[in-house]
Amino acid sequence: MNIKIILYFLGWVLNIEALLMILPCMVSLIYGDGQFLSFLAVMVLCGIIGWFTTHRRPSNIVFYAKEGFVAVALIWVVLSFFGALPFWISGEIPSLTDALFETISGFTTTGASILNNVEGLSPSMLMWRSFTHWVGGMGVLVFILAVLPLAGGGYTMHIMRAESPGPSVGKLAPKVKTTAKILYGIYLAMTMLQVILLLLGGMPFFDSLATSFGTAGTGGFGIKNSSIAFYDSYYLQGVVTVFMILFGVNFNVYYLLLVRQFKDAFSCEEARTYLLIIAAAVAAITLNIHHSFGSLFEAFHHAAFQVASIITTTGFSTVDFDVWPEFSKTILVGLMFIGACAGSTGGGMKVSRILIWLKSVKSELSALIHPRSVKVLKLEHKPLDAGVMRSVNNYFIAYFVIFSLSVLVVSLDNFDFTTTFTAVAATFNNIGPGLNAVGPACNFSQLSILSKYILMFDMLAGRLEIFPMLILFSPTTWRKGW
Amino acid sequence: MNIKIILYFLGWVLNIEALLMILPCMVSLIYGDGQFLSFLAVMVLCGIIGWFTTHRRPSNIVFYAKEGFVAVALIWVVLSFFGALPFWISGEIPSLTDALFETISGFTTTGASILNNVEGLSPSMLMWRSFTHWVGGMGVLVFILAVLPLAGGGYTMHIMRAESPGPSVGKLAPKVKTTAKILYGIYLAMTMLQVILLLLGGMPFFDSLATSFGTAGTGGFGIKNSSIAFYDSYYLQGVVTVFMILFGVNFNVYYLLLVRQFKDAFSCEEARTYLLIIAAAVAAITLNIHHSFGSLFEAFHHAAFQVASIITTTGFSTVDFDVWPEFSKTILVGLMFIGACAGSTGGGMKVSRILIWLKSVKSELSALIHPRSVKVLKLEHKPLDAGVMRSVNNYFIAYFVIFSLSVLVVSLDNFDFTTTFTAVAATFNNIGPGLNAVGPACNFSQLSILSKYILMFDMLAGRLEIFPMLILFSPTTWRKGW
Repeated sequence: MNIKIILYFLGWVLNIEALLMILPCMVSLIYGDGQFLSFLAVMVLCGIIGWFTTHRRPSNIVFYAKEGFVAVALIWVVLSFFGALPFWISGEIPSLTDALFETISGFTTTGASILNNVEGLSPSMLMWRSFTHWVGGMGVLVFILAVLPLAGGGYTMHIMRAESPGPSVGKLAPKVKTTAKILYGIYLAMTMLQVILLLLGGMPFFDSLATSFGTAGTGGFGIKNSSIAFYDSYYLQGVVTVFMILFGVNFNVYYLLLVRQFKDAFSCEEARTYLLIIAAAVAAITLNIHHSFGSLFEAFHHAAFQVASIITTTGFSTVDFDVWPEFSKTILVGLMFIGACAGSTGGGMKVSRILIWLKSVKSELSALIHPRSVKVLKLEHKPLDAGVMRSVNNYFIAYFVIFSLSVLVVSLDNFDFTTTFTAVAATFNNIGPGLNAVGPACNFSQLSILSKYILMFDMLAGRLEIFPMLILFSPTTWRKGW
Repeated sequence: MNIKIILYFLGWVLNIEALLMILPCMVSLIYGDGQFLSFLAVMVLCGIIGWFTTHRRPSNIVFYAKEGFVAVALIWVVLSFFGALPFWISGEIPSLTDALFETISGFTTTGASILNNVEGLSPSMLMWRSFTHWVGGMGVLVFILAVLPLAGGGYTMHIMRAESPGPSVGKLAPKVKTTAKILYGIYLAMTMLQVILLLLGGMPFFDSLATSFGTAGTGGFGIKNSSIAFYDSYYLQGVVTVFMILFGVNFNVYYLLLVRQFKDAFSCEEARTYLLIIAAAVAAITLNIHHSFGSLFEAFHHAAFQVASIITTTGFSTVDFDVWPEFSKTILVGLMFIGACAGSTGGGMKVSRILIWLKSVKSELSALIHPRSVKVLKLEHKPLDAGVMRSVNNYFIAYFVIFSLSVLVVSLDNFDFTTTFTAVAATFNNIGPGLNAVGPACNFSQLSILSKYILMFDMLAGRLEIFPMLILFSPTTWRKGW
């Protein structure tokens, strides 16, 4: 294990985190909310540790897959820890566990909160909280790869693979660095577009920025206790709905549009399936709930918002869907697991994995019926190799093992089964709210400390697609001689 | 598709079902409960249809895997339909849907009931209901293979594979027929032993027989409203506990013991894991519930009974575990999915599949850490071939697809999520009772007709391990030219 290169990366992450905190510092100065020093102190701390670990580039930059996974997992833990310090130092979230929960929930774009009164936070804290979504959405390491002069060593692909969501990583450009820059460019442009559209609808600038951060990262932290219901406007809620759906699409599609390969863009199997699932879910829920709303349009409006919010794993809400009929709630719980497209900022299992699994079962059936026929599984018109199939299947198994064990531990808190089950589902899939005691009108503050740490692990495991976290905690990783 | 040979098999099933009904006829005559004619009428009907379809052996006995799956699925549907007729004709279960639900629940060894008052059934009906568990436990086709002179045609292995639980079928003897005879021999001997032990504890003969049928098939239909809680005796409940666990062990182990290969028998990886899971679950639940019981022993006694009942997918109960703390209930729900050993009469996913999955994830982790190392997955000290791995993985996916769709449809009934979720879990895994509105103190009668048919499908799919039912309903199966 090349510890030095991992420490070197960790140092750079702290340097970058110090830079990121410039935003809340500015907010604090503008609003005079008195939290400037809380952020400055953490910035200085990050800067000092960062300087010590990065002032000399390690001589040995050989970097294997194992280092990639460990680096990614550790970096997310460190990023979250230092990101939590301002909340704790300022006393706005008095418990370190809660501050850590809130920050991990932010960076992993989960949006599950332990705050009873979001509006009680000062503006700089609120902005930092929403900003963590934006940073975590695209991935902080992708950002490092995009901006830092760290060529050579062959680590870039390992890191990209470990941090990017989805069964396989498509490089948009021959160089990982170029790919990372393109991705961040698209991300930034779309976020700015949303900010502008929200401003046009009359939303204040602060709110527009925070809401767009939460949407772009498919995070879901709101700055109001009633989430997006606060902005009681079909236009504003509609803009958020559309952008949630857009940020859940595979970013490859936008790249293809950008380079005018329209045919390829529109034939993306995953994106088409994703939109089809959204349409079907919205239709089913609209029919199921329309009696409780004044008009079919209003039912459709709220159904669309909630479906977009859940399938993209954002977690915003305009209504308390926990009071909806069971059929609608079950659809939403199902969408929690499906999640958004691979290569988007969304979480969950990802539509492409679901597609691969369904195709795999279909081919098993035809193999059972016609043992001599051999079919090649394809996704996006390309054959799936055995390595991807194996890894996708093992992801599925690991997913359910972690899911079950988490439910088991959280059940010690003795909440009802629905609460326990959806608390894990909502954090592991990086959504945010679940049902019952962790529903959209409630929060995660009542859970025990043990449960909170388990759910923090789940949020990180969900965001990093399980294996980096498992490898970080696997004893063989740390055994000498490997 | 060789329809003729499938019809020929169906005919034999009806002949056998007519013979099986001799038992309830005898019970009816002994108890004078007036239901003799209900059974006789169905026997005559089965006999006539059976005679017409079997009096001439089809000339073409070529039989492929496809025919095997379709035959098995159809045979279980037909068996259940005719098995339900006595309940319906007699008026003891006035709704045909309910009678069908109860019978499918019986043959698939689920034990989920729509009866509010079990004790209201006449003795012959109760005996037939419990007897379906015994018949379904080992598999009715295995029985046909054991007794009928149907050599040749190569269909035997296809049928055995389609009907036997578990990822792969171990032939105990070179001939399928001999294997089937050995299995039924062990099954019969163990059932008789349980009857004797229950009689020794003072249980009436009728009750001993019915209870043993329910235990041996890991079914769970009781003949009392309070299930096994009625027999308020540590000895009787203890005997049932031990036999539930024994019937959940891979029958290969008993065969190995029979032929005095003790070392092989005791090194069976699946059986050891199965016993380990039971021990861990009993210990955890005992600690979790012991405050609600008079003594640690009593807590242990009930924990052991319920754990054995759920993991073997029997579904008997001695207490209403729905009032236990969430942690214990979550363990029980987890056990529902794990299920018993392959090659036993139990349902669920089977311990061997769980073992294969865990090993697969472990090997994925080590492949990620050390990409160049190649490890061969082994089960029972034998390497697992790619075909088994693929089929086990596809089973897992198909399992969750069917599970999710079933939950979605049943949620239309608007029961709470726990009820909906555990109703599907308890039927698909062939257990019986779930939690809340389908808990051990309740039953499935309140569900809608649609939900009942979905759950019937789930019970059959669970018992036949999904693929035969999927193939039966797959359009390509019935396409001409294949």
